[in-house]
Amino acid sequence: MAAEATYRRPEIRKDAIHNRWVIFSPARARRPSDFKSKSDANPNSNNQSECPFCVGHEHECAPEIFRVPPDSTSDWKIRVIQNLYPALNRELNFPKCPSDSSQCSGDVAVSGFGFHDVVIESPVHPVHLADLSPAQVGDVLLAFKTRIDQLRTLDSIKYVQVFKNHGASAGASMSHSHSQIMALPVVPSAVSARVESMKEFFEQTGKCSLCQVRRDHLLIDESTHFLSIVPFAATFPFEIWTIPRYHSSHFHELDSDKAVDLGGLLKLMLVKMSSQLNNPPFNFMIHTAPLQVNPSQLPSTHWFLQIVPQLSGVGGFEMGTGCYINPVFPEDAAKVLREVLIEQDSSQ
Amino acid sequence: MAAEATYRRPEIRKDAIHNRWVIFSPARARRPSDFKSKSDANPNSNNQSECPFCVGHEHECAPEIFRVPPDSTSDWKIRVIQNLYPALNRELNFPKCPSDSSQCSGDVAVSGFGFHDVVIESPVHPVHLADLSPAQVGDVLLAFKTRIDQLRTLDSIKYVQVFKNHGASAGASMSHSHSQIMALPVVPSAVSARVESMKEFFEQTGKCSLCQVRRDHLLIDESTHFLSIVPFAATFPFEIWTIPRYHSSHFHELDSDKAVDLGGLLKLMLVKMSSQLNNPPFNFMIHTAPLQVNPSQLPSTHWFLQIVPQLSGVGGFEMGTGCYINPVFPEDAAKVLREVLIEQDSSQ
Repeated sequence: MAAEATYRRPEIRKDAIHNRWVIFSPARARRPSDFKSKSDANPNSNNQSECPFCVGHEHECAPEIFRVPPDSTSDWKIRVIQNLYPALNRELNFPKCPSDSSQCSGDVAVSGFGFHDVVIESPVHPVHLADLSPAQVGDVLLAFKTRIDQLRTLDSIKYVQVFKNHGASAGASMSHSHSQIMALPVVPSAVSARVESMKEFFEQTGKCSLCQVRRDHLLIDESTHFLSIVPFAATFPFEIWTIPRYHSSHFHELDSDKAVDLGGLLKLMLVKMSSQLNNPPFNFMIHTAPLQVNPSQLPSTHWFLQIVPQLSGVGGFEMGTGCYINPVFPEDAAKVLREVLIEQDSSQ
Repeated sequence: MAAEATYRRPEIRKDAIHNRWVIFSPARARRPSDFKSKSDANPNSNNQSECPFCVGHEHECAPEIFRVPPDSTSDWKIRVIQNLYPALNRELNFPKCPSDSSQCSGDVAVSGFGFHDVVIESPVHPVHLADLSPAQVGDVLLAFKTRIDQLRTLDSIKYVQVFKNHGASAGASMSHSHSQIMALPVVPSAVSARVESMKEFFEQTGKCSLCQVRRDHLLIDESTHFLSIVPFAATFPFEIWTIPRYHSSHFHELDSDKAVDLGGLLKLMLVKMSSQLNNPPFNFMIHTAPLQVNPSQLPSTHWFLQIVPQLSGVGGFEMGTGCYINPVFPEDAAKVLREVLIEQDSSQ
């Protein structure tokens, strides 16, 4: 009878932020507390002597954009550099329509103009983001903000995506701790869908959906200015959203005090996730508003940071429908993460 | 100088069918003809003596729905069975709102009612879909149609997704050749977006976007009733779409003659892909119209079958934006696939 108490029937929930359905199906699931990563997050650990992101190897990298502190030499803490293999081309004179394919009716193509930068989060190889202090994580967040502030001066840039790939199976080609920033000349479809969906909620209720987000049973931890939850319709098992408790449409509105506060909560989430799920590969993404957002959308858009541990792959069902199957109910994932015991100094 | 002739600048193209942007960026790419799968498509090859999908092990499976031929015993060719670990619950009396979570304002949840079936494509373990004859592949396609015809009699089923996961990294938990059918009580967001996007094109041009689809430089092969292309804005390298040359909104309109014709072209695509890309794990998905589609949408929706070899992973950029980075231009992928030489008897 005890087992029955934890049995849950499959349920289909709507993610009202992204306007998509998620199937919660515990049929194949282990107990929520039994989820562990099977893949090593760092199988491609570069040898430190060969890592171009390490201090002393700066000349092996693509050009630097800025460093923190600005006047540092070999004592830099953070470097923001160009990606040596950028997905987009930052030359402003780049032609608008590089191929004749854009002439074909119905087929739209624009030049691959944009920026693809790398944020090296630490000068030394074995130090990962979660090893930094809250203030140091805050400095990384402020480096994102500084770079976005530079990019948003360009009218041609419509959206900036900040993201982190940690571990080879999460897309990282370098094991040295880093994040990436991509500035795009178009607003991606997932961003438009999110902005539209949040606007609809606002029009129906007069409230911002993330100012109203559920906390009961879903809260993991909170800080002065932020809260971390497992969202009601989490796409992936143990997915975490860290959300400002104050209304803010754009990540780049972050100030220094809030950056340190967020740094502490982000660090805590990464430490808890790593401890509970056996150091999984993971991604995080900052979901912010488009740069040239319609002012009428400011009250309904609210930025947040999404952390996704890589515990399961994607198959034909998810590719075909955009609907994911999550074997762990958000309430169960939140309880597990809320109760993770970590050493005192890890959360400092 | 010869190398320069094949250099392409990055380009951002719009997939007008799914209404999303794709970045084509050859910067990191090998030559298109050098793409090969690194993962073995069958690392989890079950021992035949332990495989419940093999002939003689029928009693180890969840209940059978039907078999082909219908009156066969141990000489069956295809079996359609329930999934032993279904993501959805087929009990019709299943409660509508199983948890109190659906009561919360803004958060929508429905019961996880639906069907999750498996199509065993061959009675014997080592025979994969591409090994079958065109007529036998046609029989598998007709089994999909028969099952959809059963499911669409239920008013509560809004969409049926047919898909195949081949290889562990493409999501397959069994190596014995099989496909899956999931019948859902909701229309998934990616399907709504596709139907809406195709409707918009129709309203603007008076034409169905897939009746008008580009063939120049993008065609791989064609048969009497179908054509196979790499789409203009392919999300993944070497992605293939096989499209009816006649207008048809629903896959289940397929008749026996067209099924054999499609069987031959699908087999050819799988053989070419396997030969060129070193037997990669892959997915295929049948993109059809919702079951209770508005009749006004029938002229603009057109079903197709999408094949995606698993050659690259997904990172934070793709998760955050829904925008993919494809290192192989569709024209180049189509040329490579068009020119694959296969043994005469493989294409029969």
